Amino acid sequence: MQEQEFLQELKEIDLLQQALAILEWDSQTGMPDSASDYRSEVTSYLYGQYFEKKVGPKISEAITYFEAHPKELSEVGAAAFQLVKEEYELNHAVPNALMTEYSRATSKAHSAWQNARENKDFSLFREALAENIRLTKALIPYWRKDEKTAYDVLLNQYEPNMTTEILDQVFAKVREGILDIRQTLLEKGTEPRVDFLSRKMTEAQQRKFIVKVIQELGYDMERGRLDNTIHPFATGINHRDVRLTTRWNEHDFSMGIFGVIHEAGHGMYEQNIDEKFEYTPAHEGASMGIHESQSLFNEIIVGSNRDFWQKQYPYFQECAEGTFDDITFDEFYKALKRTRASLIRIEADSLTYVLHIIIRYEIEKMIFNGDVTVDELPQIWNEKYEEYLGVHPENDLEGILQDVHWSGGSFGYFPSYALGYMYAAQLYHAMQKDLDVNAVLASDDYSAIKNWLTTHIHRYGASKKPNQLILEATGEPLNPTYLLDYLRTIYFDVYQINE
Amino acid sequence: MQEQEFLQELKEIDLLQQALAILEWDSQTGMPDSASDYRSEVTSYLYGQYFEKKVGPKISEAITYFEAHPKELSEVGAAAFQLVKEEYELNHAVPNALMTEYSRATSKAHSAWQNARENKDFSLFREALAENIRLTKALIPYWRKDEKTAYDVLLNQYEPNMTTEILDQVFAKVREGILDIRQTLLEKGTEPRVDFLSRKMTEAQQRKFIVKVIQELGYDMERGRLDNTIHPFATGINHRDVRLTTRWNEHDFSMGIFGVIHEAGHGMYEQNIDEKFEYTPAHEGASMGIHESQSLFNEIIVGSNRDFWQKQYPYFQECAEGTFDDITFDEFYKALKRTRASLIRIEADSLTYVLHIIIRYEIEKMIFNGDVTVDELPQIWNEKYEEYLGVHPENDLEGILQDVHWSGGSFGYFPSYALGYMYAAQLYHAMQKDLDVNAVLASDDYSAIKNWLTTHIHRYGASKKPNQLILEATGEPLNPTYLLDYLRTIYFDVYQINE
Repeated sequence: MQEQEFLQELKEIDLLQQALAILEWDSQTGMPDSASDYRSEVTSYLYGQYFEKKVGPKISEAITYFEAHPKELSEVGAAAFQLVKEEYELNHAVPNALMTEYSRATSKAHSAWQNARENKDFSLFREALAENIRLTKALIPYWRKDEKTAYDVLLNQYEPNMTTEILDQVFAKVREGILDIRQTLLEKGTEPRVDFLSRKMTEAQQRKFIVKVIQELGYDMERGRLDNTIHPFATGINHRDVRLTTRWNEHDFSMGIFGVIHEAGHGMYEQNIDEKFEYTPAHEGASMGIHESQSLFNEIIVGSNRDFWQKQYPYFQECAEGTFDDITFDEFYKALKRTRASLIRIEADSLTYVLHIIIRYEIEKMIFNGDVTVDELPQIWNEKYEEYLGVHPENDLEGILQDVHWSGGSFGYFPSYALGYMYAAQLYHAMQKDLDVNAVLASDDYSAIKNWLTTHIHRYGASKKPNQLILEATGEPLNPTYLLDYLRTIYFDVYQINE
Repeated sequence: MQEQEFLQELKEIDLLQQALAILEWDSQTGMPDSASDYRSEVTSYLYGQYFEKKVGPKISEAITYFEAHPKELSEVGAAAFQLVKEEYELNHAVPNALMTEYSRATSKAHSAWQNARENKDFSLFREALAENIRLTKALIPYWRKDEKTAYDVLLNQYEPNMTTEILDQVFAKVREGILDIRQTLLEKGTEPRVDFLSRKMTEAQQRKFIVKVIQELGYDMERGRLDNTIHPFATGINHRDVRLTTRWNEHDFSMGIFGVIHEAGHGMYEQNIDEKFEYTPAHEGASMGIHESQSLFNEIIVGSNRDFWQKQYPYFQECAEGTFDDITFDEFYKALKRTRASLIRIEADSLTYVLHIIIRYEIEKMIFNGDVTVDELPQIWNEKYEEYLGVHPENDLEGILQDVHWSGGSFGYFPSYALGYMYAAQLYHAMQKDLDVNAVLASDDYSAIKNWLTTHIHRYGASKKPNQLILEATGEPLNPTYLLDYLRTIYFDVYQINE
C-alpha cells in the first residue's frame, strides 16, 4: 500500500467528519427545532458511513502494512498512523454485540437522565446508570493495554498517558491548596462589591466589546464566526472555518463575555494547528485536557489579569454606553473575581471549579476501582459537597443529576477540566520566562502570547501527546503548584490580603 | 426486490441530498469566505457518494424489477419509481467519457464567463460557450426520446412535456400583448411618482415588515428561517426545515421586500408537499416552471394587488417609523408598479420581465435548432433588446454576459421563468372562481389562498407533471391570456388609463 492511498482514506473520513460538524453546528445554532427528527436521520446515516470507513478494510490493511513498513511513512503520515493505530487497537477487540448493547444503553440512559432531572429524582436514573457502569466495566478488559487500574483505562481515553497515580497526588495537593486559600479569604479577606454586575448590558453591547477583544487575543474572525446557542461550544470544521457559539444574559454580562473568551481559546487552537496535518486525525487537539488548557488560558489567565482589564475597561465602559461610568476600574475588576461556593459545576468560579472536578474524580474512581453501589452515590455526592465546598444540594438536580456525562457513558472525562486549569497555569508560568506577560496584556499588541502558544502547543495538533507537549513547553511534567500560586495571587489581591 | 428496499435506497439518496443542501445553504449564508476551497472538497466527496448511489446497482435492479412488477408498488412507490425511471432513462445511455468531458467543459466555462464579465468582453467567453454548445449538441441524441426538435429535448429537462410548438405560439401572443400594453402606457399613461422609493429604510425595519407579511401569507417560520446572502434563494431541506435567504438595500426597500415575498412562495410550496412523499424524488417541486409559479404568485399576483397593499400600508408605515408618513397610499402603491425597460433581466419589472425571457428563448432555439454561430450571438442579443425593449447594451456585461446559465450548460432553463408568470396568472384566474381573492387580500386572514394553492399544487410535489397540474387546477392547458389580462388591469390602473 502506498502512503498516498492511506492518506486519501483518512481524508475521506475527515470530509465526512467535516460534514457532520457543520450539521451539528447548524442543529445547535439555526435549525428549526421541529426538524430535529429529520436531522437525526441525516446525521445517523452519515455517521454510519464515517464509522464504517474508520474500521473498514482500507484502514486495517494500512495498519498491517505500515506496521511492517514504518519507514515508508512521511512525518505527517507517521503522526496520523500512530493515532489511527491507537484508535484501532482500542476498539478492534471489542465484540460487536457488546458495543451495540453499550450504544443502546447510553442512548436509553440519556432519556432516563432527562426524565430524572425533570422529576429531580435520582431513582429514575439509577437503573440506567447502573447499566452504563456495568457495560463500561465489561468493556474495560477489551480496552485495557497496560494501565494499572480499571479507571486508568477510562482516563486514558480522554488524556493519553494520564494515571490515577499522578492524579491522586496532584489532586490531593490542589484540594488542600484551594481549601487553604478559601479559609484565608474567609478569615482575612474583604468581599468585593458585586451589585453592579447585574446591570443591563444588551447583547449588541456585549458582542461589540468581546468580538474586539477576542480578535486582539488572536482569534481570526475572517476564518470564523460567532453565533448564539443554548449550550456554548467551539467547533473546528477545518483550519479556515472555526466557529464559536455563546449565550448571553443581558443582566449578567460576565456569562457571555467570559463564555466567548473561553470558546475563542478553543478556536485559536483549532485555527493554528499546522496545515500540514489537515485531513488527518493529527489535525485536532492533543487531548481534552490540552484543549481546555487553551480555553482556560484565555478565560482564567488572561481573564483574571488586572493589567488586561485595566487596558480593556475604558472600551468596556464605552460599549456599555454609560452604564458603568460610576464604577471605578478597581471596583469593576474585583467584582469579576468574587468567589463563592456553588452547587452547580458550570456556575462555579475559577477558585472553586476544580473542587467540583475532584469530587467527581473521587466518585468515578470509587465506582470503577472500588466497590461502591449506585444507590450510595447521591449520598456520597452530597457529603463531598458539604465537605469540600460547604454547600448541600436540596435535591438531586442540584446534586448528582446536574451533569450529562455519565448518562452518555463518559466516565473519566471530568479530570480533563481540572487538567486544563493546571496546564494553563503551568504554561503561563513558563511563558513568563520568555515574555513579560503582564506588560504584553497592558499593551496594544497581544500577539506575543498567541505566538508563544502556537509555537509550543497549537501547531502540533494531536501529533504529540499531552504529557510530551507540557514537558517540552514548560520543562517539567504536570505540576499543580503553578495553579495554586496563581489563584493565591489573584484572589489575595482581590480580597486585599497582604501576607 | 421488495418495495421497502427500493424506498430505503431512495431515502439514503435523499439523506445525502439533505446534507448537501445544508452545506450549500451554509456556504451561501455563513461560511467564512476563506473556507471555500475546503468546503468544495467536502461537497465534491458527498456529491460523488450521492451520484454513485443514484446510478448504482440497487437503482438499476429496482428499475428492472418494478418495470416487470408495477403492481407491487404502493402509490408513493409508483410516483417515486416513475421519476427515478425517467432520470435513469435520460442518463443511462450517455457515454461516461462524454459526461466527464461535459462536466469539465462547464466548469471551465464558468471561470471563462467570470473572466469575460470582469473584462466586459464576450470574446473571452466565446470559445468556452462554443464548447458547451458543441457538447450539449453531442448529448442531445442520447437524451432524446420522442421530442420533435433538439431544443425540445433541453426544454423537457426543466419543464416535462413542454414543447417549442406550444412555446412559439404562447410567446408570440405574450410578446405582442406586452408590447401593446407598453405602447398604450407610453401614449396615454401617466408616470407615477417614484422619488420616495429610495428613502432609507433599515434592514431591521424591512425585516420586521416582511417577516410578518410572509407569515400571514402562510410561510411557517417555525419550520424555516430567513438569512442574508448575496444571490437569494429558498431551499427545502425537508418539509420541517425550509429556509429563505435575501439581500437588502437600505435605499431600495422594494428589493428585499419583494425578494422575500418571492422566496416565501418557493418556501410555502416546499413546506406543503404531502409528507407521504418525504425521502423520495416526488418530495420536490413538479418543475422549475411550477416552482416559479408559486414564488411569482406571491411576488406578482399578491405583490401587485391594490387591496393587499391597502391593508398592509399602515403596518409598512409603522415599520418605517415615520419615513413614509407624507406618502399617500395611492402614491405608494403606484410607485411599486412603475414600469421601465431595463437591460438586465434580474432588475426587470413585472411587465417587461417576460420579454427578457423571450429574447433568450429565441436565441437558444436558434443555437440548437438553427445554424447561428457563436460569434453572431452578441449582435443578435443586442438587436433583440433594441427591438423588444428599446434599449441598447453599452457592453457585453450589460448584454449577453449577464446570466450565469449558459456557462453552466443550462440551456432550456430560461423559459421556466416565463412559464412561472403565466402559470401564476392562470392559477389566479382559476382561484377567483372559488374565492373572492381581492376580498381575501383585503381581510385579516389570507389562509384561503394558501389552502387553495396547497390543494391544487403544493401537496402533489413532483408526483404530477406540470401540464397535468395546470390542467387539473385550472381546467385548461397553459393559456397566456390570463397573464396579459392581469398585466393590463394592473398597469392601466397604475398609469390611469381608462379604456
